[in-house]
Amino acid sequence: MAASDHPLAEQGREKPIFSFEVIAQDGRARAGVLHTPHGDILTPVFAPVGTQATVKAITPAQLEELGASLVLSNTYHLYLRPGDELVAEMGGLHRFMNWPRPMLTDSGGFQVFSLAEARKIDEDGVTFKSHIDGSQHRLTPEKSIAIQENLGADIMMAFDECAPPYDREYNQRAMQRTHAWLERCLLAKTRPDQALFGIVQGGVFPDLRAESARFVASLDLPGNAIGGLSVGESKEEMYAMLDVVEALLPAGKPRYLMGVGAPDDLLNGVLRGIDIFDCVLPTRLARHNAAMTLTGRLNLVNASFTHNQRPIDENCACYTCRNFSRAYLRHLINAKEMLSATLLSIHNLHTLLELARQMRQAILEARFESFMKTILMK
Amino acid sequence: MAASDHPLAEQGREKPIFSFEVIAQDGRARAGVLHTPHGDILTPVFAPVGTQATVKAITPAQLEELGASLVLSNTYHLYLRPGDELVAEMGGLHRFMNWPRPMLTDSGGFQVFSLAEARKIDEDGVTFKSHIDGSQHRLTPEKSIAIQENLGADIMMAFDECAPPYDREYNQRAMQRTHAWLERCLLAKTRPDQALFGIVQGGVFPDLRAESARFVASLDLPGNAIGGLSVGESKEEMYAMLDVVEALLPAGKPRYLMGVGAPDDLLNGVLRGIDIFDCVLPTRLARHNAAMTLTGRLNLVNASFTHNQRPIDENCACYTCRNFSRAYLRHLINAKEMLSATLLSIHNLHTLLELARQMRQAILEARFESFMKTILMK
Repeated sequence: MAASDHPLAEQGREKPIFSFEVIAQDGRARAGVLHTPHGDILTPVFAPVGTQATVKAITPAQLEELGASLVLSNTYHLYLRPGDELVAEMGGLHRFMNWPRPMLTDSGGFQVFSLAEARKIDEDGVTFKSHIDGSQHRLTPEKSIAIQENLGADIMMAFDECAPPYDREYNQRAMQRTHAWLERCLLAKTRPDQALFGIVQGGVFPDLRAESARFVASLDLPGNAIGGLSVGESKEEMYAMLDVVEALLPAGKPRYLMGVGAPDDLLNGVLRGIDIFDCVLPTRLARHNAAMTLTGRLNLVNASFTHNQRPIDENCACYTCRNFSRAYLRHLINAKEMLSATLLSIHNLHTLLELARQMRQAILEARFESFMKTILMK
Repeated sequence: MAASDHPLAEQGREKPIFSFEVIAQDGRARAGVLHTPHGDILTPVFAPVGTQATVKAITPAQLEELGASLVLSNTYHLYLRPGDELVAEMGGLHRFMNWPRPMLTDSGGFQVFSLAEARKIDEDGVTFKSHIDGSQHRLTPEKSIAIQENLGADIMMAFDECAPPYDREYNQRAMQRTHAWLERCLLAKTRPDQALFGIVQGGVFPDLRAESARFVASLDLPGNAIGGLSVGESKEEMYAMLDVVEALLPAGKPRYLMGVGAPDDLLNGVLRGIDIFDCVLPTRLARHNAAMTLTGRLNLVNASFTHNQRPIDENCACYTCRNFSRAYLRHLINAKEMLSATLLSIHNLHTLLELARQMRQAILEARFESFMKTILMK
């Protein structure tokens, strides 16, 4: 099916607000600009995750200082607490959490399917039990869109099913359901100031991934995502799937690789035409006392850091590295002081945001592959 | 004994570095400047407490933005963890925790005496068990000074004994011990870039307080503190003790009321010639979901705030009140997000720092009593 043939294709187009410009291309790596009602997103971009309407342990002012543009928040969590209707009443998610720049909400699908025993899937949607109080709820494509419209992020994600990567039969069924649900999401959508991104599924199976990419591409949406990766498969399998999908998704639309945040995966993703990434990794590692660097992780509880006057990374320009020693960070962790999570989150987010900025610069200067090699050889 | 008669008086003088200027006086209330090696402290001043070399849930950058000058840290805690020798090796407390402005360390006395069953007092010092691992330690006046010299704060406090307020006999003994220990602290002190403040004790007994104030005053120290208040006695009793002590402590030296941070106590303290206050109250209340205002406290867990779009205080200029609703703060608390402690700490510290600034301004404009009435009538 060609891009313009799908009967819903016209509805998928939101070009005036959400246009994407590829400024430079170097191999398959692209530097672009995605326009949104809350400002431009320069790509490649890494989006910090603010699960419950806050990027954990960080103020929005600190996030702005880090140069973050796009921030992700979670439909499942906000639907349960404080409730999407309350967020709408408070003026929407941007205003509620005081993030004036672009935002993206996921569909709730990934969290609901992760509940395992506590959820039941049918063709129409998913019934599940809240992790907070065990109360029963139901998500459908229409309900996910209604919630996301209440939240009001610039980018909404289609309600999809993420299957275990190696079960072919399950992946085929989940993919078909994901496609049917994408059409329903598009029909349910009412707000012109929000873009809907579709999601390619298909596990580790190249033919399923190709079929899914062709279907999603046919809707001519303002952006397209790749889901169901970094969920247990090998890095080689992940990169192989990106190779399949990249060739089939429209070049003029941003490509978003969901839930991926390891530095080498960002590099390998951009190499394969990915523009947007998000991941809880930097803030989660921070709360587990680990500092991310481009050459590996430091566990700051380690006794070897007791007398260490060096910052986490001498070459890092973040607030934490400019002002605090490893010995001090280790002390904060040992003393169970919250500041350790804040300072490590700042550093870890800076590492990925800065990597994205450097990748963009390398693409603009047509030296992405050598830049990537330099980083990976470190 | 006149101020200059005490044989140690010369040693107590550090005027070139730690001089105090009273800029304006309004009744007994004073606006002043205390010079220190890390900058000037404009008084009246409220000092946030950074118990374990961090003001809990706040970065030093946020503390600077709040306009804090003097920050307090705790000898007992830092001696046990990470150890004062490590702090010295790391360049001292200012550098370790990245606070470039004035700092004060307490003597460890208050914490050690609070250990109740886990400590034993003799004339020479105190033997106690660590709250962290039960290991046995000993603090003496000399040891407290050695630790505080390793920490390197601008202001050190004498090692004192804080007795239960109503036990006259105990207070008399504790006061005499406190005086003997003050002399030993002064003899033990070696660094010219640190000031030693003495501490007046004496419970709720005017004659003991007067005796103690006269003794401490006789040492002609660069500053004098009042300890053992806000520990269970009534506010009227506290204010009565301030009246006794204020008249006897030298007018040309700053007066520091230890461990007091309720807004009405700051006002009543300044009214009675106090210049410096410190308290864990604003940050501790923040971690217990309470916002301080000049008209009382708000417990933000309260269900009545669920839909409340107002900030904590419309008249407050802090980062939290400029950007976040009560409903959002309540959501953060319910969702157990660390950001609630950060945002409430910012607000509560701002409340006391701003109150101190406004008191200073009112004194400079010779309208302190009417300012105080306006605040207390709210």
